[in-house]
Amino acid sequence: MPDFSDQFRQEFNQLLRWRRDVRSFRKDPIEGAILERCFATFNLAPSVGLSEPWRVVSITSKTARNNAVANFEAENTDALKGYSGEKAKLYSSLKLSGMNDAPVQLAVYCDDKTGKGQGLGASSMPETKRYSVVAAITQFWLTARAEGLGVGWVSILDPVRMSRDLNVPKDWALIAYLCVGWPEENKTVPTLEQAGWEKRSKTLERLER
Amino acid sequence: MPDFSDQFRQEFNQLLRWRRDVRSFRKDPIEGAILERCFATFNLAPSVGLSEPWRVVSITSKTARNNAVANFEAENTDALKGYSGEKAKLYSSLKLSGMNDAPVQLAVYCDDKTGKGQGLGASSMPETKRYSVVAAITQFWLTARAEGLGVGWVSILDPVRMSRDLNVPKDWALIAYLCVGWPEENKTVPTLEQAGWEKRSKTLERLER
Repeated sequence: MPDFSDQFRQEFNQLLRWRRDVRSFRKDPIEGAILERCFATFNLAPSVGLSEPWRVVSITSKTARNNAVANFEAENTDALKGYSGEKAKLYSSLKLSGMNDAPVQLAVYCDDKTGKGQGLGASSMPETKRYSVVAAITQFWLTARAEGLGVGWVSILDPVRMSRDLNVPKDWALIAYLCVGWPEENKTVPTLEQAGWEKRSKTLERLER
Repeated sequence: MPDFSDQFRQEFNQLLRWRRDVRSFRKDPIEGAILERCFATFNLAPSVGLSEPWRVVSITSKTARNNAVANFEAENTDALKGYSGEKAKLYSSLKLSGMNDAPVQLAVYCDDKTGKGQGLGASSMPETKRYSVVAAITQFWLTARAEGLGVGWVSILDPVRMSRDLNVPKDWALIAYLCVGWPEENKTVPTLEQAGWEKRSKTLERLER
């Protein structure tokens, strides 16, 4: 195994600090070779039983993009109703998706019924298949960031409506809708912290048993 | 933002390649400072609405460890019944947990009902809270690997029994049981591939819509 140096570890820590959920993108396209390097990290991700249950759908057509935006807007309007007063005002001022600008958009699914891995490790906790997809997304996210790209995870969506719109197999579960592109700005403070919505914790409390 | 170099990107790619699900550990303890650096990456993980729903339980007492091992053994015996013939023989030859040796063991939970983040982003897809915990685990895993540590994710467990044994709040959902320690060996080929259970894919197929 490579002997990872202190310098590498420090740079990796910087990568974690500069990774952000990005919602403001420039419209410039992303060079194909860069994207391919990012996609290649999916197959290096851990997956339960080596089931590799990730399924990636590139959202490129005007119809698919418009449907996704409409889905987001409907759910976001609905979510706003859950807040009142100052909180509602703040919520409606937040930009929660970069779907109108991001040059690359991906719907990432989990094939819950994949035969790959033959169910190993997923008998009592089948949800670990979906967790494998999240691990792959996390690796993709960090790799994209190391290339200077921003990634934003949109979760304010009706997953059933999206699956119907995209006409994907019925055993696929939507895990994430990702916007990918060159970010308008880079920062270490989460957008929601900057906007005064929530604060990041400084320490990790642990229980002991 | 730091201008991440080609060299850093290559080393990061090596980190992804050498990350493994480790099941064979030396019993040597882990220096506290190293562990703290790994734990510190939880708070740098993305979380829906900045909800930081991860809850980490250190499994240190003899009782808690014995209960966890018994839980795994019962579920593993049960899982074996799902295979027959050569596949059953192969399954029973696999070492699927390092729980008897790993010096550090963690049950990682998601607090599904946390008030932090006030539900932002999680109204239509509440499962994204659990996905946030997986993202944090992935970052912890990579950070540990950069320190030379191995991490193994045990999922052959009854999560309800574990939560009862550990007496955690009822709104917490078990995401992962992690074994952490110095690995007996390092390799780039997944254990399940080496054992002939399943093969890793070389490419990521994508759909387009």
